[in-house]
Formats: sequence, structure tokens, C-alpha cells
Amino acid sequence: MKLTIERSDLLNALSHVQNVVERRNTIPILSNVLMEAQGGQVTFVATDLDIEAVDSADATITSEGAVTAPAGTLFDVVRKLPSGADVELELNPENRRLTIRSGRANFALPTLPASDFQTMTGDDGAVTFDVEAADLRRLIDKTRFAISTEETRYYLNGVYLHTADGEKGKVLRAVATDGHRLALADCEAPSGAEGLDGVIVPRKAVAEVRRLIDSADGDVSVSVSETKIVFRAGRAVLTSKLIDGAFPDYQRVIPKGNDKRLVIDNKAFESAVDRVSTVSAERSRSVKLSLDDGRLTLAVNSAETGQGHEEIECDYSADAMEIGFNAKYLLDVTAQIEAEDAEFMLNDPASPALILDPADPAARYVLMPLRV
Amino acid sequence: MKLTIERSDLLNALSHVQNVVERRNTIPILSNVLMEAQGGQVTFVATDLDIEAVDSADATITSEGAVTAPAGTLFDVVRKLPSGADVELELNPENRRLTIRSGRANFALPTLPASDFQTMTGDDGAVTFDVEAADLRRLIDKTRFAISTEETRYYLNGVYLHTADGEKGKVLRAVATDGHRLALADCEAPSGAEGLDGVIVPRKAVAEVRRLIDSADGDVSVSVSETKIVFRAGRAVLTSKLIDGAFPDYQRVIPKGNDKRLVIDNKAFESAVDRVSTVSAERSRSVKLSLDDGRLTLAVNSAETGQGHEEIECDYSADAMEIGFNAKYLLDVTAQIEAEDAEFMLNDPASPALILDPADPAARYVLMPLRV
Repeated sequence: MKLTIERSDLLNALSHVQNVVERRNTIPILSNVLMEAQGGQVTFVATDLDIEAVDSADATITSEGAVTAPAGTLFDVVRKLPSGADVELELNPENRRLTIRSGRANFALPTLPASDFQTMTGDDGAVTFDVEAADLRRLIDKTRFAISTEETRYYLNGVYLHTADGEKGKVLRAVATDGHRLALADCEAPSGAEGLDGVIVPRKAVAEVRRLIDSADGDVSVSVSETKIVFRAGRAVLTSKLIDGAFPDYQRVIPKGNDKRLVIDNKAFESAVDRVSTVSAERSRSVKLSLDDGRLTLAVNSAETGQGHEEIECDYSADAMEIGFNAKYLLDVTAQIEAEDAEFMLNDPASPALILDPADPAARYVLMPLRV
Repeated sequence: MKLTIERSDLLNALSHVQNVVERRNTIPILSNVLMEAQGGQVTFVATDLDIEAVDSADATITSEGAVTAPAGTLFDVVRKLPSGADVELELNPENRRLTIRSGRANFALPTLPASDFQTMTGDDGAVTFDVEAADLRRLIDKTRFAISTEETRYYLNGVYLHTADGEKGKVLRAVATDGHRLALADCEAPSGAEGLDGVIVPRKAVAEVRRLIDSADGDVSVSVSETKIVFRAGRAVLTSKLIDGAFPDYQRVIPKGNDKRLVIDNKAFESAVDRVSTVSAERSRSVKLSLDDGRLTLAVNSAETGQGHEEIECDYSADAMEIGFNAKYLLDVTAQIEAEDAEFMLNDPASPALILDPADPAARYVLMPLRV
């Protein structure tokens, strides 16, 4: 294998795949990236056996071939090369080292044979559709914060992606929950997505696809089989195993009859929650909201660390009530609200609250209250 | 105690002292900041028993008095208050809580009596001088990276500050070393500093005084006794215990007769060291410099992780030689060099190198070589 490639093309392709590689690996080949030089382009593949990332770049191939080399070291070396340079990659057939040459810099990295590298096989019978990169970014951004980190509830360790009936027809919907809060975002169902039953995309794959499409425009092709999901953006392909479990019936969790409506300036509310929660003991961080006729009082009371309370104006005319929430969870939601005002639909101090963003009716947030 | 103070004045004073407080404290009073309201100003004191920071700010005092409250919580609360606000601090005589009021926000923090707070006593017979803040910043910045972190060599855990004979008369000199490298910086000895015998200022005090004078201009007053050093900048006062130990005779370490002169573009050298060391195993990180008639080759060779080498042009006409250094230590020094070129004075592969900055002849760096 011998090829010449522009440093920026090489860096771009490597940056799309190398993050998938886990830093600490007991199986050496899993630290490596597979390079395949063939037909005017070089393809890079990285995997952790659950997720596989593939990208390719144009290159001048002098000699076709394939090899694997340490992903982290290769990426760091290329990143540190001066921009605008050409890079020559060559597999030395005698010592099986990968030589990297650029200007007067010269590196030799240990390799492992390409045949040892395990790539994922594609599945048949898949549902395939194209979704706009901007829509997919929105679905991810508005829900991922609610993904559970509890490993025992593995079926909550991802985003539940499926088609559902929205108010204006079929929607592609993302839902995440950790049992304490839930986030849901819809976009119009792309053509071909109708048959999507519902799959749980693991947290790491969500993060990787988000990185991949960070500055992408145009369409992302999504292909779903029983056990895998594949995202294609430009020349990059991300394949992930799906979480094999049943996502809970989230519809039951979303309150339908909450009729106590609180409308509040989102930034003022966010700052006040942040301020009063300063005095709460680190673990609980519960803040009490007292509502009474156009007035909201936020209060935190910790025997050990002190008290804080603050009053802010709001639009609330239902019966007076007190309800407690985890301050961090409140701030996670206010961070998502795009409108000037946040809208809380409440029922009673023991029932979940529904939080709406007037600027994005296709996103909904549910927060379980805390006893205060 | 009751007073009103501008939020920005309060934040500024607290930011000068609160960092001294250790986050994890078994003695509760050490988590607190002392506030003393008297005669139109409020004074804040924080301590870890080795360092004491004091600052004061103008305030409208309704009732004089003193109390202590948790430094971290108080600072966070004030930081999160809207800018431009007035803040009222009041000690509630009944429940001994400190009330903080600003706008419609209201906090109550637990307190401990001011009488429990241990302040440092001043020492007599001190050497006192004024040094320009910019000079003191320079002395710290050019030497602190070489401070040892080995606790067993406690006498190296700080910057050695003293007056010495420079080429153009008396200088105030800062020296730091960890036994592997040494950094030295001089400035003209301020009037009054002649009697300064040599004191070791601990790492944390160095960091705190650097923070304090970060944007200061004008003079910093320095006062040194047998056991303490006091820095005064504006209204802020930082007092630190000195390290009770003998700093090694650093003059013996600075090579005098190194006559092999290497002059090299500092940025090009820095990039090349950074690049080739990418392939070195994390712990050793040694890079070999091979010098031969106008050519410098940097090489790293790790059986496990690969090889890297790079050639760069330089000005070198002495006998060919090879010498190894710790890559990180080389980069710490190149980061200090202000001139376009760095100047290395070498002797042989086993002797320390002297590194000079043509833009700052009053700074010197010594690096012990590694066997390569």
C-alpha cells in the first residue's frame, strides 16, 4: 500500500472515524483504524464492535492495499502536521510498519494485518429514508440530555426513534427518558420512514452521528434493520447496533389533563433557579416553586448549607400551589427553550409537569416533581 | 453587622480571597471567609493557615460588626446575582444567619463567630520593597513551570526569591527547579530589596499572588520576614508562610563553559518536538537531538509505539553530537522564549544544556539531558 493524500482530506476523514475507537483497549486491533487504498480513494474504518465509522477521501494511489494502524497516534500525528501539506502513507513490506512522510517529518507506526480487522455486515430488509441534517440535529439536541446513564436500565441508555401520529400527520419522533424526566421532539416523517417501528439508538451512536453532521447540510440517509441503524452523510457512514430492549410506553407518562398554566420569562426563570439552587446541598438540589396569582417564588431550604428564595413575576391565574423539582433538570429544560417564555402545564404537586416551548411546538418535556 | 455594597465591588473583593480556601475542609471555620464591617468599608479575609488573603471594599455600613460565612457559597451566590445590583449583607442576631438581599433574591447562610477565625500575625524586622507588578508577573511566569511537585523535596516546592549579583548590578532573582530542569529570571533589584537573603515562596502562594496581580499595574509592595512574605497590591494583601528549608546552590547547576552553540527558529523547533514526540510512549517522552553542521534531526524511537524523526535547519557549527531531552520539558522552555530564535548552549551528551532567550537576557533555563 502506498498513496499520497492532502493533509486536510486525511485529517477530515480520520476525525470522522477515530472517535469511535475506545482509548483503553485490551484487544490491540480495536485501537487501530483500517485503511484500504483502492481505485483513487482511501477508506478509513474504525470500530468498537458496537459502532463502526467509515469515511473515505480521494488520494493518489501508487500501490493498492490495506492495513491497520493505531488510530489515536495516526490522528495526532496528522493533526500536528503543518496545514496545506501533502502526506505520503506507505506500508513497508519488510518490517510491516506504516511510514508517514510529510515535508521533512517521517514517522513509522506499528501495524496489524487488515485481515484481523472485524467489519460489520449490512442487514437486509431495512427501512430506509432521507432526513434533513438540520432536522436530525434538532431531534438529537432536544432529547439527548434526558438519556439515562443507569446501566441497569439499559433500554433507557439511548434515544428511541420511531414514527408516530402527530397532530398534522405522521412524524419522525425522538424520545429519551431516565425515569425522572422525558424529552420528545418531532419532525415531519420523511418519505419511507412510515414503516419505522421504533428502535433504541445507543448514547454513543447518538453522540457520534451528532458529531458527524455537526456542520452538514443536505440529507442524511438513515437505514434501519432489526439489529442495526446506518447513517450516511456525504461519504461518511456510521453503523451502530441497536439496543435490544423494549422502550417504555412513554405516551402514558406525558400528562394530558394538566390545566394549570404557568407562563414565565425563560431567561429570568433560568437565572433565578441557578441562583437559589446555589445554596442547596450538592446531591438533592431540589427547588420549590410556589405559585400564587401572578407571582412565582423559588425557594431552596437546606438545614446545612442555608436558604435561598427569589420572587419573579409570571402569568399564572389558577389555584395557588407548591411543587418541587430537581434544579439541574429544570435548567436542562430551560436550556432547550427557544422562545422568550417557557410554558408549564401543571396538575398537582405529585403529578408530572409538561413543559412546552412556544417557539417549537414539536418538542415536549416532562418533569417528575420532587416532594418538598 | 449590616451593610450595603455594590455587587461588582463585593465580587471583586471575594474573588481576590476565596480561592485561598481549600474546597475540602475538615475544620468548618476554614471553609469560611471573615467579613469585618467598620468605618465605611468591609474587609474580607480567607485562610488555609499557610496563606491568608485580605481585601476590602467601600460599603455603606448601617451597623458595624464581624462574622464568617461559607466562602464558596457566598462567592457563587454573588457571582450569580445580576450585574449592577446593590447587595445588602446582614447578620441576623437571632438565628445567627447571614442574610444576603439583592433585588427580589434573598439568601440566608449559616455563620460561625468571627472570634473563631484565625488570622495571621505580622512579623517584625522585615525587609520591605516595592516591585513593579509587571516585573513580578515576569519573574513568576518565567519560573513557576519548573517548580517541583515532589512532596518529599519540599524545599523545591516553591520559587526561590532573593537578591543576587547580576551583570549590571544587584538583581531581584526568582529560581525554580525540580532537579531535572531549572528556570531563572532576574529584574533590577528594587530599592530596599538589597537585604533579601533568599526565601522559598510556596507554589500555592505563587499562584495566588499571580492571580492577584494579573491585571494590576503600578507597584506591589513586598515585605519579607524570617517566616512570612507579604504582598500588597491596591487594597489586597496576601500573606504566606515561607518554606522552611534550604534551597540548593543553583549556581552550581548553571553551566558556565558550554561552548557548542545551537541557534534555532523557536516555533519551528517547538512544532517539530511536539510532532515527533507524538509517537513516544506516554511516560518517558524522550526526544533525541542529533546535531551536525547546520542540521538538527529530532528523533523518537519507541519499540512499542513507533518512530518519528524530523530534520530542521539550524545554526550549528561545532562538533557533531547527539543529546536527548524530555520532550515536555523542552516544550515548557520553548513556551517561555519570546525571541524568534532559541539559543542552546551545549557541552556534551551527559551535561546540562543552558537555553537562552535573545529577547530576554535576564532569563535562563537549564535542562538535564536524558540518556538516549
